[in-house]
Amino acid sequence: MSKAKLGRPRSEKSKEAILSATHALLSETMGTGLTIEAIARRAKVGKPTIYRWWPGVADIVLEVVLSQANASITVSTSDSLQETLGQFLRESMNAIVNWGGVHLRFLVAHAQKDEAFRDRFRDNFTAKRRAVLKSIFAQAMERGEIGSEQNVEILVDMVFGAMWYRLLIGHAPANETFADDLTEAIIRLVQNPPV
Amino acid sequence: MSKAKLGRPRSEKSKEAILSATHALLSETMGTGLTIEAIARRAKVGKPTIYRWWPGVADIVLEVVLSQANASITVSTSDSLQETLGQFLRESMNAIVNWGGVHLRFLVAHAQKDEAFRDRFRDNFTAKRRAVLKSIFAQAMERGEIGSEQNVEILVDMVFGAMWYRLLIGHAPANETFADDLTEAIIRLVQNPPV
Repeated sequence: MSKAKLGRPRSEKSKEAILSATHALLSETMGTGLTIEAIARRAKVGKPTIYRWWPGVADIVLEVVLSQANASITVSTSDSLQETLGQFLRESMNAIVNWGGVHLRFLVAHAQKDEAFRDRFRDNFTAKRRAVLKSIFAQAMERGEIGSEQNVEILVDMVFGAMWYRLLIGHAPANETFADDLTEAIIRLVQNPPV
Repeated sequence: MSKAKLGRPRSEKSKEAILSATHALLSETMGTGLTIEAIARRAKVGKPTIYRWWPGVADIVLEVVLSQANASITVSTSDSLQETLGQFLRESMNAIVNWGGVHLRFLVAHAQKDEAFRDRFRDNFTAKRRAVLKSIFAQAMERGEIGSEQNVEILVDMVFGAMWYRLLIGHAPANETFADDLTEAIIRLVQNPPV
């Protein structure tokens, strides 16, 4: 790294090339052999360029996932929890099926070997996804669709937990049918008063 | 490997030493640097002895987990779903807290990089844990404690999913309190008729 590092504006073109190369390599190789060298070669940039912006491969993958997740998963303004939750879970599941399954599996695997990265993954990805889902439940609570006695943290754990579990273990598909089954189970849970 | 491999009885003493060494090394190193070399050195056996029984490190860890899980997680014969599920989840969570958290994180991370191992992990560990939890729900269904309209696969995904999610992401503790919260949420879900 040279003195020029300080104050140098980011080259957005190189940055985009690095993110695209990482996304392509991950999809092609299923995550095996994804290295800084391979990304630099594909993106036609030098390794120092990459290290100027990211500490390692996993952080580049995290940035790819963040930009894609924000673009592809929306929250509807429907007044029905069933509709809002159903759409959110279908879009989340489609993101896994269409582009993000390998990426997410790569990230969670890396997070088990690197505690500092695990913190960044939690703060930058899972905490934000949890906040979106919590706001869906909170709005339904305000409308009186779900009772205030519900444990929203546990609801979020059960929904995202079930999705991650299917993705990581692979005992059954993480797809739109699963999104609908999960929505139905959660609706049944929250719409009934405790006995 | 020599011809002597065929028909040779397993040396149970060496095998136990290898499993103990693996368990100790995992707990000490949090999974980083767990290698066949390190296990062989600690267990005072040769590497060929290890490779005669296991294809690699992850399969040894899997065997450690299988033997411990079977020994430490029981299923009560209570007639109440709340009691049976509560005890099962508390024991499962205690296994994570007391000895198995690092092991399970190691296994699921490895499974993301090795599809053949992922199949073995699913067949030998998660499928068996799922079968136990499903039988708990099935018995409650037979007793009429939960309705036959419940989707047991989704219930199992939500329970184990929530546990794995907390363990892997670490946003909140996977402990006895969580086991009790999860039991309560599931009981509320299954004990109410759909509206």
